[in-house]
Amino acid sequence: MNPLRRLLDKNENPFDLPEEIKALILQKIGRASFNRYPDPEYAVLKERLSMYCGFSADSIVPGNGGDEILWMLFSRYVKPGDSVLVFSPAFSEYYRLADLFGASLCTVQADLNGDEPRFDHTLFLSRMAELKPSLVLVDSPNNPTGQSHPVSFIGKAVALCESTIVIDEAYGEFARDNWLSSMRGKVLPANVVVLKTLSKAWGLAGLRLGYAVCGKDSASALNAARSPFNVNILSGTAAEIILEHSEVMLARVKLLCGIRDGFISLVNRLQGWRAFSSDANFVLIRAPFPWSSFASSLGDLCLKRFALSSDTEDSTCWLRVSIGTEEDMESVISLFDTMQRR
Amino acid sequence: MNPLRRLLDKNENPFDLPEEIKALILQKIGRASFNRYPDPEYAVLKERLSMYCGFSADSIVPGNGGDEILWMLFSRYVKPGDSVLVFSPAFSEYYRLADLFGASLCTVQADLNGDEPRFDHTLFLSRMAELKPSLVLVDSPNNPTGQSHPVSFIGKAVALCESTIVIDEAYGEFARDNWLSSMRGKVLPANVVVLKTLSKAWGLAGLRLGYAVCGKDSASALNAARSPFNVNILSGTAAEIILEHSEVMLARVKLLCGIRDGFISLVNRLQGWRAFSSDANFVLIRAPFPWSSFASSLGDLCLKRFALSSDTEDSTCWLRVSIGTEEDMESVISLFDTMQRR
Repeated sequence: MNPLRRLLDKNENPFDLPEEIKALILQKIGRASFNRYPDPEYAVLKERLSMYCGFSADSIVPGNGGDEILWMLFSRYVKPGDSVLVFSPAFSEYYRLADLFGASLCTVQADLNGDEPRFDHTLFLSRMAELKPSLVLVDSPNNPTGQSHPVSFIGKAVALCESTIVIDEAYGEFARDNWLSSMRGKVLPANVVVLKTLSKAWGLAGLRLGYAVCGKDSASALNAARSPFNVNILSGTAAEIILEHSEVMLARVKLLCGIRDGFISLVNRLQGWRAFSSDANFVLIRAPFPWSSFASSLGDLCLKRFALSSDTEDSTCWLRVSIGTEEDMESVISLFDTMQRR
Repeated sequence: MNPLRRLLDKNENPFDLPEEIKALILQKIGRASFNRYPDPEYAVLKERLSMYCGFSADSIVPGNGGDEILWMLFSRYVKPGDSVLVFSPAFSEYYRLADLFGASLCTVQADLNGDEPRFDHTLFLSRMAELKPSLVLVDSPNNPTGQSHPVSFIGKAVALCESTIVIDEAYGEFARDNWLSSMRGKVLPANVVVLKTLSKAWGLAGLRLGYAVCGKDSASALNAARSPFNVNILSGTAAEIILEHSEVMLARVKLLCGIRDGFISLVNRLQGWRAFSSDANFVLIRAPFPWSSFASSLGDLCLKRFALSSDTEDSTCWLRVSIGTEEDMESVISLFDTMQRR
């Protein structure tokens, strides 16, 4: 990989772990027995995750990334022809898995024409009541718009859902508030799965470590499904160590949120551009130029383009830009600026 | 974990990597960007696996352990009520997954009453023709008996199978011959998946790295199903390095096979005990004592007990003993000997 490329297309954290924490991890990994299977109960890992999120260890199911937990959920709950309810747009993996498992995907489309995206929460709840989907997935903050759904809406959706509901808070640490935090000290409803990951705020995308914080029934179902050794000892060890250093994560989240908000302001000063406000480590931008005018000018920048309208006549160019370092974002602004002046 | 325990219950390799290889791995891991996702194509890893097994990189699908590949296969091919055909006994995960996915499990029972297990290969083929199962699984060497199925039988089963057939050669390196090696230089039939792992001969159980060597259709199906980042960068890096040191693996396999065969001879000298011959790194033993007489005498030994008969009256005690170091095996023999003399 070209180290000079500015990778702003996968919502990765631009910061690798501090050297001293990496050294601790390497030291502990060096003492691990590579030839032995992991503890199938993941007792230490679950304990650390429990301390961090504030829910009991037995409500936590570790995964090989959040992706594996989504996969388990589809495997357990979705049969061919079943309905799955999501907002649109949403995390692309929901669409891929719905297709793979032969589900009938029901989407509630966001209105992206204004200054901020608008999600029709009332319509979502009524579609849920009508359709009785096998699985309901709500990503909050939503990917790619960056918007959190109101905690009150999520609470209602959870209370009204008669099947399994997934609240995907992979980016929750970057948000002002999130549903899981609002539930601290309470018992999670039996049918809820809150999806979390160490890939984003914690900056461990390469290690593939996600987890679910579950209500009682969901925890049983996921634990029965889970392969006994689904998290490897190297990633598990790294996670156990980094989870004791949440101050590093919190400082970086604060820094990235600052960079993000500055970036949004700068984009919105450019004539014809619109960057939506964001509760995540990425920003969705409506650009006044077609993708073709970007493609040749990107240089070392990796941005993610989205086709967000089913209307083939609509040639609006949507970009999802991950929040990198200040320098990364200056490069992006400089690109936009140059295009504007051409 | 108590380091003094002799862990002979999970068919792990008793030897951790040589210190100098571990040092190389740690060095390379130390330079990796933990915050970046892995290469979703796993180009380097697949190339190294390809060099080792002798099949093209595009026929290889990496997995989070062989377990994940089994999970993908059940997800893709088995719907509730479908038939799945296996020998019995076989790898316990086949039974768990068949149950989880609501399959009707059809087993062809081995005869374990004689000096060596006998598998009815003709019956297996005729059951396959009658039942037309959605998925056929053959582990060779078989777990827990340790027996390889004849390469000629596997060839026939693959040729006659009208659905997807999995040849699980997780322990293939310990066998005199295996089907995958017999296919070198040939094109694998479209519907076949050969399951391989770095957990056993390579001694990387903790790293969770399995792979499938597939025919064309199976490779497409598995690649479509696979989560884009299913192998983490730490395990991937370690695998890339160890795969360049197959001489280490081969020497250890040779050593373990020698220890295994010596152990089998010693057990078979004890009156009333029977250790089956083995093509794997474990041995199945029919003991002349009930499990209850072991339970109190195991000390630091971890052995795996099997209930292999559906007949509840049959109290035969079956033990599957993994091949550890010479010292480990001396402890086992010493336990058996003591019981014998009591």
